[in-house]
Amino acid sequence: MTPAPPEISHDPRTGLPTTTARPTGPAELAATMARAVTAVPTLSGVAPGERARWLHAVADAVEAAREELVRLADWETALGTARLQGELTRTVAQVRFYADEAAAGHFLRLEHDTADGQTPGMTRVNLPLGPVGVFGAGNFPFAFGVLGHDTASALAAGCPVVVKAHPAHLGVSNELFGLARSALAAAGAPDGTLGIVHGFEAGIDLVRHADLAAVAFTGSQSGGLALWRLANERPVVIPVFAEMGTVNPVVVTPLGAARIEEVAHGLVSSFTLGHGQYCTKPGLVLAPTGGDLAARVADELARLAPEPVMLTQRIADGVRSGVKALQDAGAALTLQLGGDGAGWSAPAAVLEVPLAEVRAGSTLLEEVFGAVVVVAGYDAPEQVLATLAELPGALAATLFAGPGEDPWAARWLPALSSKVGRVVLDGWTTGAPLVRAQQHGGPWPSTTQPTATTIGARALERFVRPVAYQGFRDELLPPVARRSNPWSVPCRVDGNWTS
Amino acid sequence: MTPAPPEISHDPRTGLPTTTARPTGPAELAATMARAVTAVPTLSGVAPGERARWLHAVADAVEAAREELVRLADWETALGTARLQGELTRTVAQVRFYADEAAAGHFLRLEHDTADGQTPGMTRVNLPLGPVGVFGAGNFPFAFGVLGHDTASALAAGCPVVVKAHPAHLGVSNELFGLARSALAAAGAPDGTLGIVHGFEAGIDLVRHADLAAVAFTGSQSGGLALWRLANERPVVIPVFAEMGTVNPVVVTPLGAARIEEVAHGLVSSFTLGHGQYCTKPGLVLAPTGGDLAARVADELARLAPEPVMLTQRIADGVRSGVKALQDAGAALTLQLGGDGAGWSAPAAVLEVPLAEVRAGSTLLEEVFGAVVVVAGYDAPEQVLATLAELPGALAATLFAGPGEDPWAARWLPALSSKVGRVVLDGWTTGAPLVRAQQHGGPWPSTTQPTATTIGARALERFVRPVAYQGFRDELLPPVARRSNPWSVPCRVDGNWTS
Repeated sequence: MTPAPPEISHDPRTGLPTTTARPTGPAELAATMARAVTAVPTLSGVAPGERARWLHAVADAVEAAREELVRLADWETALGTARLQGELTRTVAQVRFYADEAAAGHFLRLEHDTADGQTPGMTRVNLPLGPVGVFGAGNFPFAFGVLGHDTASALAAGCPVVVKAHPAHLGVSNELFGLARSALAAAGAPDGTLGIVHGFEAGIDLVRHADLAAVAFTGSQSGGLALWRLANERPVVIPVFAEMGTVNPVVVTPLGAARIEEVAHGLVSSFTLGHGQYCTKPGLVLAPTGGDLAARVADELARLAPEPVMLTQRIADGVRSGVKALQDAGAALTLQLGGDGAGWSAPAAVLEVPLAEVRAGSTLLEEVFGAVVVVAGYDAPEQVLATLAELPGALAATLFAGPGEDPWAARWLPALSSKVGRVVLDGWTTGAPLVRAQQHGGPWPSTTQPTATTIGARALERFVRPVAYQGFRDELLPPVARRSNPWSVPCRVDGNWTS
Repeated sequence: MTPAPPEISHDPRTGLPTTTARPTGPAELAATMARAVTAVPTLSGVAPGERARWLHAVADAVEAAREELVRLADWETALGTARLQGELTRTVAQVRFYADEAAAGHFLRLEHDTADGQTPGMTRVNLPLGPVGVFGAGNFPFAFGVLGHDTASALAAGCPVVVKAHPAHLGVSNELFGLARSALAAAGAPDGTLGIVHGFEAGIDLVRHADLAAVAFTGSQSGGLALWRLANERPVVIPVFAEMGTVNPVVVTPLGAARIEEVAHGLVSSFTLGHGQYCTKPGLVLAPTGGDLAARVADELARLAPEPVMLTQRIADGVRSGVKALQDAGAALTLQLGGDGAGWSAPAAVLEVPLAEVRAGSTLLEEVFGAVVVVAGYDAPEQVLATLAELPGALAATLFAGPGEDPWAARWLPALSSKVGRVVLDGWTTGAPLVRAQQHGGPWPSTTQPTATTIGARALERFVRPVAYQGFRDELLPPVARRSNPWSVPCRVDGNWTS
């Protein structure tokens, strides 16, 4: 058998190689998984505050390596140092956020029901699932990378993590892994808390591995659904939390259109952010034809004159073929700019289409992963509700309403919220705020588990499972489930919160 | 096209027909689903306390029809009037439980994060999924039937329900549906809140229907997994909450064996309950060989001399072939009793096998749906941990420990709890107590969604999905999500509970 060729990351600005990685072979994967399994009892047995301490040590280590990480990430992704400095700041904050959420213990959802004459005592608590496979994203080397939301929330919840490194930024991935492993070891976390594998085949073998308990993925529909299908073919099926690219809709009400200049300006900033490589990028705007939004967006885009350089050659090619597909589906090109630079340059574009063309199954409702937006004009607001019903599930949507009362906003909001995980009023979906109440996930096909979130306090709950203990004595229970509550976990007793 | 033959329920004691039902055709299913869709805005728009009022009206109606329902159910299931009286009492209590849980509002998991200089305000709340298809069980005509846990918790959560009636008790199903529909209408619930379909094809068409949002199923592995696969083939995949039969293990520690007489007595009561037709039936007992448990169970079984009559001919045949398959897998028959009565009579049996034979993939780990139990004796307690690792996921397990400290119990509990949704100490898994902290669900293949429960407060959470509202003004939000909290829902604000 010939050994698999190495994986290679590239500098998108030149197309030249930056980093190579040897694909992880079956024996090495088995050893990595065996270490993860060995770490399970410790990770699930320590108080969540102890895991929080480990995670803060990881956050410290990332912060200490900031300049080197940003330099490397910019070389491998061309996302720009300003954006990457911000993303690193955010990633450090994320790791600390999940650490603190773990320590706070709400994710355990501990609940006791006291025995009475009729029923025995019952205690229910969330226990960690076991080793989690994390498939990071290409477009966020830090925030959704080796130490991104999925890894941090899985570790916080008490699960060892094995990361499949994204081939677009192998150098950053290895650097993050190395510093996290050292920091974890120094903080006292067991060997096997965090592992890494490289290569397409190793990713498949990871999902198929008998000891893997769950998969988290951020990326394209094709990638996420392939992993979901693979997991569904296992003898023991495991959950796949895939968060996938979608066309995030923006709806401007007739009253909201009074601010059409502000909408045009904000939209261009939002859809060109990170060269349009955001899963939360607004992709389709429903706006009154009278506001002439497409023309205004084109003016603003021409003024900004972005020169997108994409993460990979494939993504750059996808932008070109995507714009073509939108035109084939009935959209008219209002403006297309750039795409003729060096390396993996791609155009930015705005297109326009009559609202009536926006129908379920149309290519107009498929994501173009790049700085491309479609404006669908409506003549009469009565048309909009029917179109909202045609939209597929998406991660997030925006509603631009008038100030004060807005009857259209009230009518459209239930339809819009039934299609997404998050609705933003008078703002933009790119940049999902890191707050407890965040919901980053939405109906199929934006995720494979519409109740799950990749960001926010409930991200931890993806990686735990409730277990009930009936008729137990405290001394036989694990500490987390004891009535004496040695870890001071928030707890409901007979329906009432005690802390 | 020839019309499909009618479905027929039978009297298990004689094998004679009791009730027939005409299969629901495609046009009728479409009309039923259209009514459910029409009910969605009302069900999701009213305060949960209003839905609670409707459900209490349903509970009242069931209670008022008690004698007729029990008579009909005994005719169609042969479960006996004492058991069915108890099951009806429990079912009325369940409907009221989910009503009260809905009104209490914890399932909404409402959470606000206040805007600060860095982040916008964010509100997250659980919204109902939409129409739910419920496939009830044969073995619990009330508790897991037309108005069972799934229906009651889905309605409580704000989802219309379309039930696929179980062919084993069509008469009870139609009676329950009729009285619930009347009660719902009289209480002011919209038409379409509850629907019913009959027939195998209608069940498939229901799962495939574009407007169905989720499926709940209670029954066999083959049935549940078939629906799960069907849902996974939809253009828009929907969650299937299938709760399926498994071999629920009982583990007796060396110290627990001091009470071997009590174990034998309780085990026989538990595994013969409802003629062994419980998804929580203990199916495999790991006990010290010295205690001679199989012989004691055989003695107790002989004394009790049960005469099982099964729900269907197929189940009765399955008991016979199941006992044969256990013997082929290496188990020795200690005692087999009965099975030669009228109608769908089947034997009760206890078998014995050395612990070493209990290995992953063995037929010994497949459920026999009937009054059949396998005792696996261990010579040394050091053998047990390896066997626990071989067990497949199950709904529930029992641990019989010694009084006070029990080192084996402490060592085995983590392994046991990693395999099940509920662990019972010194008691039996049959009869899952109706308490908030109940977890009736476990790892694959006992359920298709190991985080879900069919019983308990969290049963409602299967049928909702979180939505986040970012930067909203109160007046644009649905009442449930408003800061002013008009429904007085339990709420976390900036991480702290306010009620």
